Amino acid sequence: MSKVFVNIGLSLDGYMAPEGMTLEHWDSPEYKQWGAKWGELMGWVFNQEYFRANLKLGPGGDTGPVNDMIRFTTERIGANIMGKRMFDGGERSWPEDAPFHTSVYVLTHEKRQPWVRPGGTMFYFVNDGPEAALEQARDSAAGRDVRIAGGADVIQQYMNLGVIDELEISLAPVLFGGGRLLFANLREPAPRFRIERVLDTPAATHLRYVRE
Amino acid sequence: MSKVFVNIGLSLDGYMAPEGMTLEHWDSPEYKQWGAKWGELMGWVFNQEYFRANLKLGPGGDTGPVNDMIRFTTERIGANIMGKRMFDGGERSWPEDAPFHTSVYVLTHEKRQPWVRPGGTMFYFVNDGPEAALEQARDSAAGRDVRIAGGADVIQQYMNLGVIDELEISLAPVLFGGGRLLFANLREPAPRFRIERVLDTPAATHLRYVRE
Repeated sequence: MSKVFVNIGLSLDGYMAPEGMTLEHWDSPEYKQWGAKWGELMGWVFNQEYFRANLKLGPGGDTGPVNDMIRFTTERIGANIMGKRMFDGGERSWPEDAPFHTSVYVLTHEKRQPWVRPGGTMFYFVNDGPEAALEQARDSAAGRDVRIAGGADVIQQYMNLGVIDELEISLAPVLFGGGRLLFANLREPAPRFRIERVLDTPAATHLRYVRE
Repeated sequence: MSKVFVNIGLSLDGYMAPEGMTLEHWDSPEYKQWGAKWGELMGWVFNQEYFRANLKLGPGGDTGPVNDMIRFTTERIGANIMGKRMFDGGERSWPEDAPFHTSVYVLTHEKRQPWVRPGGTMFYFVNDGPEAALEQARDSAAGRDVRIAGGADVIQQYMNLGVIDELEISLAPVLFGGGRLLFANLREPAPRFRIERVLDTPAATHLRYVRE
């Protein structure tokens, strides 16, 4: 059966995104220096060959274990789930050929017809909650895995449903001092994880946790 | 010159201590299950030979790289600094022979004469703030390093003074869902760290960050 997993970059102080990185300030990365902070969090990914090819950022890039990790993670994804805020940001910044190449289930109160992008990305707008979205995503993934893409509040909803099988966290040595915390609003008892793999690189510590 | 460092256990969601682990409930570890949670956070340390010998917990224990790390960290400490709340908890739970064997500077408004323990631990009660305590600790450390022992608020004060040279974090795969956050109240710009060492074990990921 499909696994449900999260794969995100996290600052050392626990933030998925710095303060100021909101739709309102999307075109002003200098606002509260959110662009520079985001770059410090995620800079490692932009130099990986697989990521560059997937986002059409040009040839070249690293081909070591981090690149292998990104390929493995990307290829296992059969469907994505995301929140409306993340979608709204992406709708403004993804290329025409959106970088998912799977069905993407967007949790929203907005009613909207599916939105098909070239390259195999199909956005579905789900109005009946996270469990319904997960059911549709599992069906669509056809044996591959379901990625909960974000944002933080959506990940928290699925954490609290107890359905997240794996957490993949790339912990960067940067302190944001504020922003969107990944781990907040967790209900007790929290799910239990064990460390499955640690990939140690200078730019980030890539941690994979598997639910017990 | 002495380095100033922090060495702490941290839950995956960023807590140094679970909710309920306060002086008021010190004798009721079942309160909000703080004892069990603390055990999940720090369990790895109780089976290390050096730690067991240092706390007189009995013979035996692991002698691998984690034990070496604990020995290295313990032997580099020339002086400790802690907050009054941490001291109050310790005063009730440390053995007669308190486990520091150095001078310990306690940040407090309380005026109190130095308190000498057998085994070389001497507690000094400092009333004139964190910078004065650090100066005294550096003098006392005589070339060895100064450990900011905690709690979270004291570590945050020293982070915001920009004087912490190294962060040693043992990140355990446990979610507390609440408690005392290590990284909070950070002032901008936050200090910048690089990853210096990652020690990957099943019970915790031991991360060492050095200030750039």
